[in-house]
Amino acid sequence: MAERSFQLYDTTLRDGTQQEGLVLTVEDKLAVARRLDALGIHFIEGGWPGAIPKDTEFFHRARTELQLRSAQLAAFGATRRPGVSVAVDPQVRALLAAETPVVTLVAKSHTGHVGHALRTTLAENLAMIGSTVRHLVHAGRRVFLDAEHYFDGYRLNREYALAVVHTAVEAGAETVVLCDTNGGSLPNEVGAVVADTIAMTGAPVGIHCHDDTGCAVANTMAAIDAGAVHAQGTAHGYGERCGNANLFTVIANLLLKRGKKVLPLDRLPELTRTGLAITEITGVRADPSAPYTGASAFTHKAGLHASALRVDPDLYQHTDPALVGNVMRTLVSDMGGRSSVELKARELGYQVAAGSDVVARAAARVKDLENRGYSFESADASFELLLREELAGSPPPPPFEVESWSIGVSSRPDGQVRTEACVRLRVEGEPVTADGHGNGPVNALDTALHRALDPYFPALAGLELVDYRVRVLSGQTGSGAATRVLISYRDGERRWGTVGVDQNTVAASWAALLDAVHYVLLDRSRSAPGSPPLAVAASG
Amino acid sequence: MAERSFQLYDTTLRDGTQQEGLVLTVEDKLAVARRLDALGIHFIEGGWPGAIPKDTEFFHRARTELQLRSAQLAAFGATRRPGVSVAVDPQVRALLAAETPVVTLVAKSHTGHVGHALRTTLAENLAMIGSTVRHLVHAGRRVFLDAEHYFDGYRLNREYALAVVHTAVEAGAETVVLCDTNGGSLPNEVGAVVADTIAMTGAPVGIHCHDDTGCAVANTMAAIDAGAVHAQGTAHGYGERCGNANLFTVIANLLLKRGKKVLPLDRLPELTRTGLAITEITGVRADPSAPYTGASAFTHKAGLHASALRVDPDLYQHTDPALVGNVMRTLVSDMGGRSSVELKARELGYQVAAGSDVVARAAARVKDLENRGYSFESADASFELLLREELAGSPPPPPFEVESWSIGVSSRPDGQVRTEACVRLRVEGEPVTADGHGNGPVNALDTALHRALDPYFPALAGLELVDYRVRVLSGQTGSGAATRVLISYRDGERRWGTVGVDQNTVAASWAALLDAVHYVLLDRSRSAPGSPPLAVAASG
Repeated sequence: MAERSFQLYDTTLRDGTQQEGLVLTVEDKLAVARRLDALGIHFIEGGWPGAIPKDTEFFHRARTELQLRSAQLAAFGATRRPGVSVAVDPQVRALLAAETPVVTLVAKSHTGHVGHALRTTLAENLAMIGSTVRHLVHAGRRVFLDAEHYFDGYRLNREYALAVVHTAVEAGAETVVLCDTNGGSLPNEVGAVVADTIAMTGAPVGIHCHDDTGCAVANTMAAIDAGAVHAQGTAHGYGERCGNANLFTVIANLLLKRGKKVLPLDRLPELTRTGLAITEITGVRADPSAPYTGASAFTHKAGLHASALRVDPDLYQHTDPALVGNVMRTLVSDMGGRSSVELKARELGYQVAAGSDVVARAAARVKDLENRGYSFESADASFELLLREELAGSPPPPPFEVESWSIGVSSRPDGQVRTEACVRLRVEGEPVTADGHGNGPVNALDTALHRALDPYFPALAGLELVDYRVRVLSGQTGSGAATRVLISYRDGERRWGTVGVDQNTVAASWAALLDAVHYVLLDRSRSAPGSPPLAVAASG
Repeated sequence: MAERSFQLYDTTLRDGTQQEGLVLTVEDKLAVARRLDALGIHFIEGGWPGAIPKDTEFFHRARTELQLRSAQLAAFGATRRPGVSVAVDPQVRALLAAETPVVTLVAKSHTGHVGHALRTTLAENLAMIGSTVRHLVHAGRRVFLDAEHYFDGYRLNREYALAVVHTAVEAGAETVVLCDTNGGSLPNEVGAVVADTIAMTGAPVGIHCHDDTGCAVANTMAAIDAGAVHAQGTAHGYGERCGNANLFTVIANLLLKRGKKVLPLDRLPELTRTGLAITEITGVRADPSAPYTGASAFTHKAGLHASALRVDPDLYQHTDPALVGNVMRTLVSDMGGRSSVELKARELGYQVAAGSDVVARAAARVKDLENRGYSFESADASFELLLREELAGSPPPPPFEVESWSIGVSSRPDGQVRTEACVRLRVEGEPVTADGHGNGPVNALDTALHRALDPYFPALAGLELVDYRVRVLSGQTGSGAATRVLISYRDGERRWGTVGVDQNTVAASWAALLDAVHYVLLDRSRSAPGSPPLAVAASG
């Protein structure tokens, strides 16, 4: 059973959208809300009706298009304006028109803001809070009050901050959410202020933190330890400036570190998938290093760790990644050696023996190649080709041969620059020549390769070059140094990468492009009917 | 005065490089160390000599190539192996051979790890710690002990964890660093364990945290509040899995929130710039939402905030961004652009007026160019060219004209790849043609440009291409997207960079190469006898 007395409140659709670069359509907002509801979040703040037209439309469409299973929608807005009757305040009317079960009112609790930003008296601000809360409760709404700048306000004028909390609760607010709006607080201060506020007012208290000191999650945990019963945050910590508290991290910490059943336990493994789905909708990538849900959150590179990981994975991870729907990965690098090669091979589906010659030979080749500038961390396809060669004992017969290739780049009088590539190959002994244009040598060669090979190998048609990086290695001077080219591909649902290293930058790109073609042809033959199973027996 | 009794210890070059995708050359590592030293970090951990060949080379080259002003270098390694005499342990010998003033030893403090990973007895582990610390202290090293898995170990067997600390201090370790290796702890636990450890052992204690619960910074702060006198972390929080504690955030929190003068106050405004320089070296972007140093850290989007910001910026920011060398930006105005242009111009020696037309025009051009993919953070020469154009009111007369250029790259049957460039210019109306070879288009064009122009402009002879980076910008697919090329040069004692952006990668490189030539010719004429002074009066 979920501990429903504790409230998880998501504000991705309101405060999260203040993040630089995050722009959501109404359709996007509906899709995010569905995902959060499926995860089991209790309250979803949809936006500010009346103030933002897109948000007004969101609430309108939500009524018919959003069938929420576990969450309640909240509309966000300010208390009535100074000197205006609450019944006629257009903003309060817009809040009611949103027809949500919950309304979250933002109110000033910092005396400086009452005077300078709101330009009213301290008494009128309290009257605004009281009358607006009462009006909404009377209309049948559950009302949460966001006490803005609460921690800064409390430091400046504790009595007034406490009076705001008291006024809201007296008027019928269900929870008063203490907001560290500028994000400048540290956990011990937050814990102390929350504890004092609860002791002085007896209010059910919530917490809303920003990450400007890198402590948004810790501040949220400190508030909950001090008695807060409601936590606000956003997916991936999206939000203005440094972002809001990452609600995913807060949820996992509460369940796994505090044993607080804020979600049904069978929902927790949906956390990583929910995060991925939301980044697909927002188009704003999440930090791969994010706790619990990040792509790297359980990824190991160190040799020290890799050897111990084989003995007992729990020695080097703080929790089981499966609990949050994530996976452990190991990276092949010069820090890892044999253990990381073995772990990576297993991850790719090869059952290689621990102390086998194959692993020893592959590790030695990786080490040698990395000394020459290769990096296999993001070039998993190049690593798999190497491993397959060692498993087979020799390079596989090439599906085609390369005779030569060339590139021409020239500027034209109109300033335009033209790049042409030509590749000359042999497929089953027959000469095949193709040319291709592109926005530079890599793309032109890629185009020419596709034109030459796709007719013979239809599997290549799905291979798409997504990105590449060129890096000059070491080298006191630009010339004479080796160049490393990393290329990323999309191949149907999958994404993977290859690496090429050469003194010549274009030759390095060519090597990485060829690895990709070889990998696709290897891969397709493997999964074709009647081909050998994915797991190849280790020799040696 | 910096509070030198408190130790800031950076492990970007060792633990930071465990981050997925972060691969540093020896050259990169030296460059990062110079930046950290300039910031005023007290200790820089360079790597693990003996275990990683690249790190052995780093320490070797550091002896002659690294003139550190404020930092001491630390070599990292493990205690001697079980049953081996410390005097003959090859790993301990490699630590001494690194010839650093500081050695940081990693030791097990978790009974499970001693048995399962180290495969020795609890008593032998203590003996390994004692003898290795004594041996290194005897050899004149300052010794820090990293107590691995300390917090998990303490929970499992408090007596043994405390015995590890006690043994290290008895043997002469200067500081014992308590490591939350798996990153699963929360601040209140960290604070309590640190306080108990200090009370029971009297040891000078350090703290090393990982971010697996999103609390690395908060855990570090809690440890310091509880008496720790040494904080470890990495630039941008680079590190394995979820990363290490972000040392930049810890530094700013200590100075601005705790008033702890861990750096001289005049160093703090270098924080943001140091962070930018390090991302340029690593090629791994930092989170734009990172506290204090992130590009969005002081960026406001909310309409609510933007209007109040005009009244009093301090109402909506937790600290003055200038204190950490960052700027406030609002996404609805050009405020950020203007002030950063003005700051950069002053930094380059141009006395431009605060609200001048020149600054407004330059800011508008920078904004437009950045929208098109340019980045001036490390392309100071390209920025200065732009600024000079605005100061002069028009582009300067070009010292030469470009007719056309071309590149040919071709593979030969022996596998060799040949790159040739040809440039056709006009100098004072006369046609000048030259060709050049290189290890790729950029170097071949650079060689051809030098061969064409050096006879006419001797100042160009000192210009040396040091490095370049190619990045595909945005773009769902590789083709069609714009490419940004950043080129770094050495020019006598100075190092600076230029930027070019174009759909065609080679054209982007050509633009960046031309900027460099123009910059040198501008620069030399400026500093020639009788030429105008560096500071140019602002018009408008």
